[in-house]
Amino acid sequence: MSKIDFMRIAFQLAKKGLNKTGSNPMVGAVVVKNNKIIGRGFHAEFGGPHAEVNAIKDAEDKGFSVANSKMFVTLEPCCYFKKKTPPCTQLIVKKGIKEVIIGMKDPNTKVNGKGIGFLKKHRIKTQIVDYRAQNEKLNKGFINLIRNRIPYVTLKICLTMDGKIYNLKKNGESIGDLFQLEHANLLRKEYNSVLVGINTIINDDPQLTYRGKEKIFFEQPRPIVLDSHLRIPLKSKIINLKNSPIIFTKTSSSSRKFKALTQAGCKVVTMSALEPQRILRKLSSLNIQSVLIEGGGKVFSNFLKSKLWNELIVYYSPKFLGKDGLSVSHYLDNEFLIDNKEIKIKKIGKCFMLKIS
Amino acid sequence: MSKIDFMRIAFQLAKKGLNKTGSNPMVGAVVVKNNKIIGRGFHAEFGGPHAEVNAIKDAEDKGFSVANSKMFVTLEPCCYFKKKTPPCTQLIVKKGIKEVIIGMKDPNTKVNGKGIGFLKKHRIKTQIVDYRAQNEKLNKGFINLIRNRIPYVTLKICLTMDGKIYNLKKNGESIGDLFQLEHANLLRKEYNSVLVGINTIINDDPQLTYRGKEKIFFEQPRPIVLDSHLRIPLKSKIINLKNSPIIFTKTSSSSRKFKALTQAGCKVVTMSALEPQRILRKLSSLNIQSVLIEGGGKVFSNFLKSKLWNELIVYYSPKFLGKDGLSVSHYLDNEFLIDNKEIKIKKIGKCFMLKIS
Repeated sequence: MSKIDFMRIAFQLAKKGLNKTGSNPMVGAVVVKNNKIIGRGFHAEFGGPHAEVNAIKDAEDKGFSVANSKMFVTLEPCCYFKKKTPPCTQLIVKKGIKEVIIGMKDPNTKVNGKGIGFLKKHRIKTQIVDYRAQNEKLNKGFINLIRNRIPYVTLKICLTMDGKIYNLKKNGESIGDLFQLEHANLLRKEYNSVLVGINTIINDDPQLTYRGKEKIFFEQPRPIVLDSHLRIPLKSKIINLKNSPIIFTKTSSSSRKFKALTQAGCKVVTMSALEPQRILRKLSSLNIQSVLIEGGGKVFSNFLKSKLWNELIVYYSPKFLGKDGLSVSHYLDNEFLIDNKEIKIKKIGKCFMLKIS
Repeated sequence: MSKIDFMRIAFQLAKKGLNKTGSNPMVGAVVVKNNKIIGRGFHAEFGGPHAEVNAIKDAEDKGFSVANSKMFVTLEPCCYFKKKTPPCTQLIVKKGIKEVIIGMKDPNTKVNGKGIGFLKKHRIKTQIVDYRAQNEKLNKGFINLIRNRIPYVTLKICLTMDGKIYNLKKNGESIGDLFQLEHANLLRKEYNSVLVGINTIINDDPQLTYRGKEKIFFEQPRPIVLDSHLRIPLKSKIINLKNSPIIFTKTSSSSRKFKALTQAGCKVVTMSALEPQRILRKLSSLNIQSVLIEGGGKVFSNFLKSKLWNELIVYYSPKFLGKDGLSVSHYLDNEFLIDNKEIKIKKIGKCFMLKIS
């Protein structure tokens, strides 16, 4: 097998950490001896051992010595202390691995080449097999956290052709069709968290879960609700499902509802104003690396205006609601120009999707 | 050259009749002897000679005899009297043409196989070289007139992503960009007429002309304005350009403005109500085979609801106008579902286009 083959396998392993690594990156590693894989590992839990540690342990558990082996790892091994686990570069040196092949430098300034430097200093060969594009896609949340100190944000909404989000005459009727709903649900798989406004909870009582293939192996996204006055019903599905909901509110922590929600397993965060920037900063401190914002109109407009989003996904359903519909821009006081470079379009059933990034 | 090659050349000739044939189809013909083209013709003017007549005349003008030749004609030759020109099948028989190769049966029930029958009866070989798909596209207006007794109707509109057609704070600012405007202008080349509401004339004073390549060889579409109270300024560009504007109004023909407009070269039609069905029926009697409806919102909504359209083209511009914008569905009282089968999407500059048919 070629270097690219081993790196591809390491990358497949990295993906297994999807939504399990908190604010950490997803990383995979394989240990190779005599052109055969003797150990596999990935970063499986925030605060838990890194991919390199797991791959070495896997090899040793199977009775192999990793001395003089090669390690393929999708992201540069870490090299600093004062964190939850000891630096991987030290372990690599200690175990006598002779070469480390790396998919991408760690953009975290605490590493960013220093890991490679440490290995070189200890006479371990290093090489980059460029897996940056794949890493940037998989770890978009982690990378955005490092670069902008807020999670990766995707704004998603489904509109009629005349820009309406809600049929005022047919409460609760979905704007999209089944194909669109399935496609939109699939998105949730790629995000740490799903954010909605309180009206969405009150009107629709959604689960905010991923319900596609392999859902049982999957760490569900954390539901996030913006709820100024803590109107969320304690019987809401998102509370009963216990996917660690986060509720942002202006209501004091001394209120009875605040306490009841906390007791029910919610993380309730009180802020003087529910502004996108403050919410996103808070989410990064709660180890959220990516947020899928699912509306409704008020939440959508506020985040759209904030410009703090990375991606905008708009589904259009082939109908006009006319005066029967509530406009997506009901809460948008001013014109907003999209000046992003990349616009992709795709048909989804009878709907079509715009992806702007 | 093969039969398909000759038919292709006949079809190229047919296209030269674009917007010149009134409610007649565009038809092209070539006369072939010893595998060489000796005559070319197309239908160039409503009420003028047909393609077959012109092709025979072209051959004879060049000194050829058409006896024992083959004729390739894109549409079945006509065979009935009581129209502006004598039937082509008679001429074909009289001139001793030995074989006629036809691109498509004429859907007009007065012909529809009867032309072929007449030729066969006179021992002229006939054959179909299937050019139906191309004909249906080129002659969509004519075919729609025959089938539905109204012109082919395309609804065109440019929206912001939130379904707005007009920036209330920046009067006259275009919703689309230059690429979109160019693309939309190109559409006009394919239509006999362009229809707008009076507010579009008053607000924008448009020319409603095709301004692309080869515009000087091109028969401009007739401008059509829906103007209940004859508010159209006599100085409007569409009046000065003298492309035979048609104005639909509820104002009596005895009014001073009615007379002034008629004197200025407009066809003014008075109706008790400007309903899509009545307007389109009237247009078919005025030899209009296709209409591009360019809005604004009120006209768009009325024709959308009427379901009398064949194609819907919506451009989306990458911006949200929010409360600054007038919604396309401001005049749409009820939900309208698009149940058409075919939806195409395309990027046009930074905009994207939906084509529903």
